[in-house]
Order: sequence, then C-alpha cells, then structure tokens
Amino acid sequence: MQEDNPQFESYLASAVAQATRVPCPARFAEALEYAVFPGGARVRPRLCLAVAHANGMPDPLLAIAAAGAIELLHCASLVHDDLPCFDNADERRGKASVHKAYGERLAVLVGDALIVLAYQSLMNQASNVLSAPALISVHQCISKSVGAPLGICAGQAWECESDIDLHAYHQAKTAALFIASTCVGAASAGQDPALWQLLGDRIGEAYQVADDILDACADAAITGKPVGQDAIHGRPNAVSVLGLDGAVQRFKLLVSEGIDAIPECAGRPDLQRLVRAQAESLLPKKLVLRAA
Amino acid sequence: MQEDNPQFESYLASAVAQATRVPCPARFAEALEYAVFPGGARVRPRLCLAVAHANGMPDPLLAIAAAGAIELLHCASLVHDDLPCFDNADERRGKASVHKAYGERLAVLVGDALIVLAYQSLMNQASNVLSAPALISVHQCISKSVGAPLGICAGQAWECESDIDLHAYHQAKTAALFIASTCVGAASAGQDPALWQLLGDRIGEAYQVADDILDACADAAITGKPVGQDAIHGRPNAVSVLGLDGAVQRFKLLVSEGIDAIPECAGRPDLQRLVRAQAESLLPKKLVLRAA
Repeated sequence: MQEDNPQFESYLASAVAQATRVPCPARFAEALEYAVFPGGARVRPRLCLAVAHANGMPDPLLAIAAAGAIELLHCASLVHDDLPCFDNADERRGKASVHKAYGERLAVLVGDALIVLAYQSLMNQASNVLSAPALISVHQCISKSVGAPLGICAGQAWECESDIDLHAYHQAKTAALFIASTCVGAASAGQDPALWQLLGDRIGEAYQVADDILDACADAAITGKPVGQDAIHGRPNAVSVLGLDGAVQRFKLLVSEGIDAIPECAGRPDLQRLVRAQAESLLPKKLVLRAA
Repeated sequence: MQEDNPQFESYLASAVAQATRVPCPARFAEALEYAVFPGGARVRPRLCLAVAHANGMPDPLLAIAAAGAIELLHCASLVHDDLPCFDNADERRGKASVHKAYGERLAVLVGDALIVLAYQSLMNQASNVLSAPALISVHQCISKSVGAPLGICAGQAWECESDIDLHAYHQAKTAALFIASTCVGAASAGQDPALWQLLGDRIGEAYQVADDILDACADAAITGKPVGQDAIHGRPNAVSVLGLDGAVQRFKLLVSEGIDAIPECAGRPDLQRLVRAQAESLLPKKLVLRAA
C-alpha cells in the first residue's frame, strides 16, 4: 500500500503526527509511530478504498479518513493482542512487537491512544466532508466493528470464555473489521452499508482461514510474526479442523462467495478482479495449486 | 450521583446494555457492567452537567450523552491504570479491581471496549441532538482530553519517561478529563468551550492534590482503593513536595481560582456554590480545618 497509495500513507502520517506533537512524551510518541509505520499490507484500508472507488468515490476525503480510522483501530488491536497476557508475541510485521520494544505499559497506552486517534482523526474531517449523514454512518459502522457485542474486543473476549461460540468468535475477532471496511467504504460514498456486509464477511473469514493456514504451515520469515501460535494457545484453527487441503478449498469458496456478493455498482467488474487478486496473494501459490 | 441523577445513571445503564447484549461473551458482559456500576462519585459527569445547566441546558440529551462518554472514558482509564503493569491495584471503588475479579485479559478488553462505547453512545445520539456543530465540538473536546499529546493516555505515558515534564504530566493525567468535563458541558449548550477550560484545569489540579493528600494520609476504608501508592511507585505527590498543610492550602487556592474562573452565565452563582460544596467534600473536614 505504501507504494500503491501514497495519499493514504501521507494522510495516516499526518493523523499520527497530530498525536505525537509536543508535548507528547518522547518514548510514547516513538512507540505510536512504531505501531503504525511501516505498515503491513494495509489490507483493510485498501479494501475500504476499493469499495468507495467502485461506488464512484464522491467524497475522497471521507473515504480516506474512514480507511485511516480502520487502519488505526487495526494497529491498536495488534498491539493489544501481542501483549504478554494474550499472545505474548515477540514479533509483529517483521520487527519486535510494541511491548517488546517499548515495554508493556507503553503498549497498553499506545493501543488506547490509537483507538482515540481513530475517532479523533475521523471527526476532524467533519467540517470538510460533503455529507454529515455519510460521516455519521461511517462512525457507526466502525464502532460496531470494534466494540461489543459484535466487534473485535468482543471477539478477543471469546478466548476468555469456557464455552466458546465459534461462529460469533470468528465473526467478531476477524470478520468484523473486514465488514467495517466494505460497509464504511460504501457508507463514505453515500451507499447503504448493509448491502456490503456479505462481501466483508466472506473476505474476513477467508482471511482468517488464510491466517490459520499460514500459522499451521508457514515459517516466520513469510508471515513476519511467530507461527504455530494457535496450537500453542489451544485456539481453533481451520487446518486442524478441515485438514490442509480442506482449509485451502474452504478459503477458495469463501473468496468466490465474497466476489459474487459484490452489489451492482459502476465499478463492480474491477472490484471483483481486485478482490480476487488480493485474496490470491494471501497464500503461497504452491498451496493454492496443491489443493486444486 | 446515583441518587442525585437517576436520569444519568439510567442513560449510562442503557449505553452499557447496548454493549453487553447477545451475543456478547457472558464474562465480558459481566466485566463491562462491573467496571461501570456501581459508580464512584461520578464527579466528572456531575461537573459536566452542572456546567451545561449553568448555561441553560438547551439540549439535555446531548449534555447527558456527553457526560456519559466522559464517565465511560474515566472508567476505562481506571481499569487500565489498575492493571498489573501499572498500579497493580487489587481494589477500586471499594471492591476488587477488574483485573483481580476477571483477569488481566478481560481487563484490557474492558478498557478498550469502554473507549469505543464512549464514542459510539455519543454518536448514537446524532439524529436526536439539536445542533450538529455542538455534537462535533463535544466529540473534539473529548478526544483531546483522552488521547495524545494532551490527554490521559499521554499523561499516564509520562510515567514511562526518564525525564518527566511534571506540569504536562499532571495536566494530562488528571486535569485533562476535568477540562473535558467543563468544556464539553459548555459545548453541549452551544457555548465556546475554550472559555471553560480554566475552571476544569483548576478543579482538575485540586482533585489531583486531594487525591495525593488522601493517598498520603487516609486509609483504604475512606478511599475505596489502596493508599500509599505514590510512595510505593515513586510518583510525585503534593504532600511530599509541599508538606500536608502546604498541600491543603494549595488545594484551597486551586478551588478558589476555579470558582473565580467561571465565566459569566445565567447560572454562575449556583455553579459557584456547587463547585465549592463538591470540592469541600473531597477531603475529610478535620484536614481542611487543620490547615485553616
């Protein structure tokens, strides 16, 4: 995304700079930057902007602000997920995790501050956006996807229950932010977000299955984070349930269902191609071919 | 506040109920409730509503939603401050802290979800409020007070620096949410929040000094949380700097400055009386008399 969309990266940099300016404590400022840059694949904002684009992108500023809020919330969730009390992950995005690099206290605060910054940076655009109802709709979709009972906080909390609702767990932990990406992309273009939920849901589940496959099969050099974590933490993993080939088949089915679910809009064919290409890049080619 | 303002408590209960409804994981739902109810003195929302009231309270719904967001953010900050990596506090509001009662993982997630809920519940009122600019102003004041570089996240982060800016630390850690309370109360009534900053600043610092005094002198039965924590954690404390009488004098000066800073408005005399009464209730009477 860094190369693809310098406008988005520069928006994100200016949002973070708003938080790190004087008198922000120096190490905290450094840790905030570190948690957001350099980014991963920026999959969620990319999806959000692609959906906005497919709908004519009438308000590019709102679309970018919405995509930025989603990425900031995603970064916050990674920082908190990596904490010692959760995954206790040493690495993320090919470098030390935030708590390893800056300590646990700053990692908690970085996550908190990024949640706030997501909302703050979105709302800072209030006087520049073309449609207040579209901004409100974006805000509401985002909140739904990160909070409780349906968002990523609730998803993570399922791991603390003795009796897990697996569907609700996956929906909330991974799919929710993908659903937000598609819904918010549509909402930023004045469209009904509900029509775009199924695309986000399927892509989100496909992404979770791909993540499970990589966790079970790949090495850390590919993923940029420790592998084999699901087995270590006793978490459900699609490979342990369906086998490797079954998981790859499931992944392909979900991607197809997602692509079919794209509503009629001016940019539908382009968006279908883009979603397929993005999805295929998630798994090593030899895995996809093996299951064919 | 519970007795004083059942309307506010019932608003807060319905906001939390939105997060804890099915399919929220059961223990997570319980922990969310536990973190908000029963409340402490609800000092910040009380101050926010008092300022709104002094300005004629033209939009009670927005004032209550704003006060609710501030209280939810305050609760979130308490839950995260009590975590093992920060204060490692066993008690809060006279009962076990959230991480003691529900574990560290749920405590992290409860804090995160309450931040989200603060914004979500505020924005859920978007279609009911009388003035969109007032809502936006409320949203911006709140973000400023909790994020970085000036909000409570940044304030807490000062504790992780080797070189502490003491003024910025106190401003951000404690005063910020009081400043938000006065500014947001004014903004909800369509007034310029900047005029109400000094009141919040002085009351916030007074509250911090009172907290320092209680931490140094009182016992846990009075405060409902462990005492002597500043000494244990090597944190700055007004009593260690100014002595007990000096700290009480400082407290009284700050309260007077705050009261003097209340801008001209219809309810100024009532608000002055209320602020004085609230402030005086913060310290045991014998301490205040001793320093007189």
